[in-house]
Amino acid sequence: MRQSRLLLTTLRESPADAEVISHQLMLRAGFIRQLAAGIYTYLPLGRKVLRKAEQIVREEMDRAGAQEMLMPVMQPAELWKESGRYSVYGPELMRLNDRHEREFALGPTHEEVITSIVRGEINSYRKLPVTLYQIQTKFRDERRPRFGLLRGREFLMKDAYSFDADWEGLDESYRQMFQAYNRILTRCEINFRAVEADAGAIGGEGGTHEFMALADIGEDTIAACTVCDYAANLEQAESRAARTDSVERSEEKAVKFHTPGIRTIGQLVQSLGIRSSDIMKTIVYTADSRPVAVVVRGDREVNEIKVKNYLRAGDLSIADAEAVEEATGAPAGFVGPLGLSIPLLVDEEVFGMANGIAGANEADYHYRNLDPGRDLAESEVGDFRQAAEGDRCPRCAEGVLKLSRGIEIGHVFKLGTKYSESLEASFLDAAGKSTRMIMGCYGIGVSRILSAVIEQNHDTNGIIWPLALAPYQVHLIPVSIKDDVQVQAANDIYRRLQENGIEVLMDDRDERPGVKFKDSDLIGIPFRIVIGKDAGQGKVEFVERRSGLKETVTLQAACEKILEQVRLSKPAH
Amino acid sequence: MRQSRLLLTTLRESPADAEVISHQLMLRAGFIRQLAAGIYTYLPLGRKVLRKAEQIVREEMDRAGAQEMLMPVMQPAELWKESGRYSVYGPELMRLNDRHEREFALGPTHEEVITSIVRGEINSYRKLPVTLYQIQTKFRDERRPRFGLLRGREFLMKDAYSFDADWEGLDESYRQMFQAYNRILTRCEINFRAVEADAGAIGGEGGTHEFMALADIGEDTIAACTVCDYAANLEQAESRAARTDSVERSEEKAVKFHTPGIRTIGQLVQSLGIRSSDIMKTIVYTADSRPVAVVVRGDREVNEIKVKNYLRAGDLSIADAEAVEEATGAPAGFVGPLGLSIPLLVDEEVFGMANGIAGANEADYHYRNLDPGRDLAESEVGDFRQAAEGDRCPRCAEGVLKLSRGIEIGHVFKLGTKYSESLEASFLDAAGKSTRMIMGCYGIGVSRILSAVIEQNHDTNGIIWPLALAPYQVHLIPVSIKDDVQVQAANDIYRRLQENGIEVLMDDRDERPGVKFKDSDLIGIPFRIVIGKDAGQGKVEFVERRSGLKETVTLQAACEKILEQVRLSKPAH
Repeated sequence: MRQSRLLLTTLRESPADAEVISHQLMLRAGFIRQLAAGIYTYLPLGRKVLRKAEQIVREEMDRAGAQEMLMPVMQPAELWKESGRYSVYGPELMRLNDRHEREFALGPTHEEVITSIVRGEINSYRKLPVTLYQIQTKFRDERRPRFGLLRGREFLMKDAYSFDADWEGLDESYRQMFQAYNRILTRCEINFRAVEADAGAIGGEGGTHEFMALADIGEDTIAACTVCDYAANLEQAESRAARTDSVERSEEKAVKFHTPGIRTIGQLVQSLGIRSSDIMKTIVYTADSRPVAVVVRGDREVNEIKVKNYLRAGDLSIADAEAVEEATGAPAGFVGPLGLSIPLLVDEEVFGMANGIAGANEADYHYRNLDPGRDLAESEVGDFRQAAEGDRCPRCAEGVLKLSRGIEIGHVFKLGTKYSESLEASFLDAAGKSTRMIMGCYGIGVSRILSAVIEQNHDTNGIIWPLALAPYQVHLIPVSIKDDVQVQAANDIYRRLQENGIEVLMDDRDERPGVKFKDSDLIGIPFRIVIGKDAGQGKVEFVERRSGLKETVTLQAACEKILEQVRLSKPAH
Repeated sequence: MRQSRLLLTTLRESPADAEVISHQLMLRAGFIRQLAAGIYTYLPLGRKVLRKAEQIVREEMDRAGAQEMLMPVMQPAELWKESGRYSVYGPELMRLNDRHEREFALGPTHEEVITSIVRGEINSYRKLPVTLYQIQTKFRDERRPRFGLLRGREFLMKDAYSFDADWEGLDESYRQMFQAYNRILTRCEINFRAVEADAGAIGGEGGTHEFMALADIGEDTIAACTVCDYAANLEQAESRAARTDSVERSEEKAVKFHTPGIRTIGQLVQSLGIRSSDIMKTIVYTADSRPVAVVVRGDREVNEIKVKNYLRAGDLSIADAEAVEEATGAPAGFVGPLGLSIPLLVDEEVFGMANGIAGANEADYHYRNLDPGRDLAESEVGDFRQAAEGDRCPRCAEGVLKLSRGIEIGHVFKLGTKYSESLEASFLDAAGKSTRMIMGCYGIGVSRILSAVIEQNHDTNGIIWPLALAPYQVHLIPVSIKDDVQVQAANDIYRRLQENGIEVLMDDRDERPGVKFKDSDLIGIPFRIVIGKDAGQGKVEFVERRSGLKETVTLQAACEKILEQVRLSKPAH
């Protein structure tokens, strides 16, 4: 492609509303333009990168045995009513009526549609398993679209759905998709972790993993082991319960003592000269309208997702002052686990404590010498705490957890029978018995890949594309297009590389060299060949965008280097 | 692909609402399924064909120098208000509000969006011309969706837009797109005609052509010359005005005569013993609320599109009885051109008549001996008649027009400055003067290609795909998968062909041969290799789907035939 003909305008400044570097660079380098909040046009360079990401996803899906199809954007509301999601999905679901006032949703996801299709096509175990996918535009009316392609309202996703005859089959289908996701993100050269995640609102009964690109701007926090490959979303992360090097166990019973006006952990620590880890922190929640108390060590936070999942609650929120008093008889700040008449969940770590301090469920009083083994024997015990940096890994003996931020690129999910039940997708098993299909769903944000890659691959001058995603593989820059020798050499290399299937952008503009190099750095094509004064001697400059390394080589050698690099970058099959 | 794993269910019967053969076969052969009226899912086989059509379109667009981009489905209503189309587009435009009650349209076309983008990116003649395209899902809320993919509400289109500095540039951009469309449809093996068409509601000032696939179910009528390459949509078709071999010219003046109750051409012919071509037929229209009379020969029909375009009328309709009487003073059936006080358009062919008969603008009276040259000298003369089968070609001396039906697959259109005016897309020309860009737009119905191809390529047993679009290139059928020799031979050919890049579907199902062959015919893969009893001797049957020709060849020869056919089908570049 000749750059003089390319629809490409680079910007010196990034628009004020572009908060993150990937958004800024995609705008400045002319890859995308905003049409409305969270809605973007891909200009030619952006479209090329998006298609490369699409193609990598497609190849790996095909390799994993998934079959491509294409489902509609417009989905009849009836299907969403069948699954029960029409009412619960909320304002993120874009809705419209057609000219006959029939209700439709613009698909944010396609579980309903695929289930309705498969229930019509498959009626025997002989046709299972099957995994189907599509690469399709999705719609989600985000309350606050931001970060460019990262949280948009119209975006490109690959979504896949597996249908199996039994749970073992699902495990295998899930494993294949999991591996395919690993390959996809590896080919895109993304630094990622596959993390255990929370099943969340989508429902389902099996495991679920998120594929997280590590980046400071990520909206999720990941806890990952420094030694083994354990990684989980912080919402979900386990940790080994801390050993307690606390005071010696006392034989004394729990004793109530006067603590006028002392309501917080901080105040207790200060007035009693103790550590926060000596305190049992008790929080009262309302779970589906009923009160429940959760106890964690004073230096910990309650992980509400774990509590919610343990209770199988639809809704969980911290109780307000009035509800606390009603449930415990005590004002907030003096609630404790001893003598409560509401359900009590105690974090396992609390059982490592001795002689704990806790509220006495009476204004201005606390207990000391609480021994959980003795005093909280009736409570329900589990992992209800938030993991924290430095916690010991739940899987291996050596590692500790390290927290980092991640961008969710992919999500694999064992759905089970959630949709095959509500939408009645059954098959006859080998014994002729009607059985629900076991489903999995697998999403990857194709447009999001672009943002994540740029967050991880840029410098102060611009983007640094991995070869697999670069809009062009080589940027050919004749320094002066008024110099016939340079132009002729450039045309020669251009033709040679193209004949070998290399994608070349040639900057044939009549611009100053500084402008050309600045634009080239910004756009971020991995290899640059500069044709300058030495062109007459058959010499050119070969520049690697990432390292900035420059070397003067023969025209022939430059071509060979490119061919070699491209050859090396092809995935091994 | 092993057929036992493919999501494919063939149907014996076609659903009752599938009226046309392409729709019936795509449903029966498991290519598509309806989700809602005019909204379809592409199952794996359908998706494959659609992607091949997409890829052909993409390759030819790229070859023509067009640059791919991707514009959003959701378009802010403001842009449509800027162009003025928001109010005039009518109920075919799907509209929705987002959570903040901002209005959006689901793009049926992208003139507004592309113009708003290009006006932001290009400000100098140096960056022109540019042609941009996308392959994107489009939405149109058809009042009556039908014919499967032919008139759907959600469909895949390639739309392209050219921007030029002047009209000569547009001519060249248009020519390149015109040629690309010819190549696309030729590669898809569609029997088509590029026809001159009416500019219609989309506006614009230059030429426009439709690319019509010839098919009896087509919703458009085409008039094409039997000798030269003249072809036009009937709405637009010209014809050479017929010579008149009528009665000799009389010296008499026009004479009124009594014709009680004789109101129609048929009644005049019968009662006077004349030919309908001796009569001047006068029709009163209301054009933008004002009456106008149009005269054509009695054996002709008025072409309302021509009249509307001639008058530059926004709206044209036949006047009702009351309006006719008000405009002419005569009841319907007795209107004629002589003595009218409203504007009068006379078809040029009428001037070849002499001694014509026409209404006298008085109840129960007609004129005879009307001489247009003498009596209608004050009228406006033009081509206002509908062309008809057998009319002489307007371009060449020898041919006559033949009418046929066509499916509109593509449309190329010189828009001129319609959108660059309303959306203010300007650039500085070489002299530094701000100038409007000159635009063209070019659409092709990618999903429609599938329907057109099937309408033209099927027999009573099913679809006959051209090699370029077939979901697989070869259908490999071991007659019995219980026969190890057959299975081994099949696996051998399968592997060999795949290693050579051939797309193979292997019917590894445990089904009776009859079922397999029936399904194979229905799906329509161009080449079939049947592995039967002779497998032990290294012999297989090679079958051509289109001709039905069968021959017994060696396994090796079968592979070579396939490779040769595929090689031959590659486009020459």
